[in-house]
Amino acid sequence: MPDHQRADARRNYARILAVAEQEVAAHGADASLERIARIAGVGSATVRRHFPGRRALLEAVFAERIEALRVCAVEAAEAEDARTALLDWLRALTEYAASARGMADALAQDRLVEPEQVNACTAKLGGAVEPLLRRAAAEGVVAPGVTPTDLLTLVTGIALAAEHQADPAAEARRLLGLTVEGLSPTR
Amino acid sequence: MPDHQRADARRNYARILAVAEQEVAAHGADASLERIARIAGVGSATVRRHFPGRRALLEAVFAERIEALRVCAVEAAEAEDARTALLDWLRALTEYAASARGMADALAQDRLVEPEQVNACTAKLGGAVEPLLRRAAAEGVVAPGVTPTDLLTLVTGIALAAEHQADPAAEARRLLGLTVEGLSPTR
Repeated sequence: MPDHQRADARRNYARILAVAEQEVAAHGADASLERIARIAGVGSATVRRHFPGRRALLEAVFAERIEALRVCAVEAAEAEDARTALLDWLRALTEYAASARGMADALAQDRLVEPEQVNACTAKLGGAVEPLLRRAAAEGVVAPGVTPTDLLTLVTGIALAAEHQADPAAEARRLLGLTVEGLSPTR
Repeated sequence: MPDHQRADARRNYARILAVAEQEVAAHGADASLERIARIAGVGSATVRRHFPGRRALLEAVFAERIEALRVCAVEAAEAEDARTALLDWLRALTEYAASARGMADALAQDRLVEPEQVNACTAKLGGAVEPLLRRAAAEGVVAPGVTPTDLLTLVTGIALAAEHQADPAAEARRLLGLTVEGLSPTR
């Protein structure tokens, strides 16, 4: 394949993936492949060449968001304040989880993605937040004994519970705020 | 129906419902009706007479637990300490939600129960915890602005997120503890 064709293919791939992320955020795992092709300005055949089916597309969207969250954690680690770094990342994670509109659930339940892949994503996110959490713990700004898994499980729960509310993202932010400050902390 | 037959029927109903609660807690919404009949020491025909189908049985178990939680809230209101009263009830709610093993979800998703009925249960639980929450707020032992819905949504999320862990009830208790004390309360 000549260089310019390869460059075109890469551009198409990136454009389809970007549109797919938006569509999945808006319509969940049922996002229309035809609509994604139309908005990306490519033919359905081009979408199918890059993503042989819904499963491949959803997996790519999922992997892309997980990777973005990993990068986000690396950047947050540079922040001066350990608590801010951790909370900023938790907010990003919550926003993503709420905007995924049950995608993870759909992937897992419809067996579109093997549980092992979901576990691998969880491990990747856990590994990403671990340094932020360790630093926050060292500075005493996080509850003692909190693990990366605790954070991921709580945010997953918040996203799942907020999913059926009128404004899932706003509801998830509110619930994360309550969870961070505590419903009834010991005084 | 003579009095002694009516009394027998009531006893059978109560026994089947008690066994059904245990079986649903252990096996979720897929609990076997035949097994329930066997453990309750009645025939399958008797189970079917009281509960024409799985839906009727699950609804009865659901209603029974919601009612128990309402009674529990009324009793908790008698407690001397407002924070203890609220937290005891939250723990009971969490334990139930985690032990229901996706029953509410199964009921809603399989359209075994109309969303309106789930909403009615939510309203009943919200109404039950409201006096506990008001008292805790008046004594300043709960985060400002927390609503009954916040509590129900958070506990639902915790139960959903804990569902796939090895020990859902223990995990849910741990996550509730973190949520009550706060992941990273402002000092």
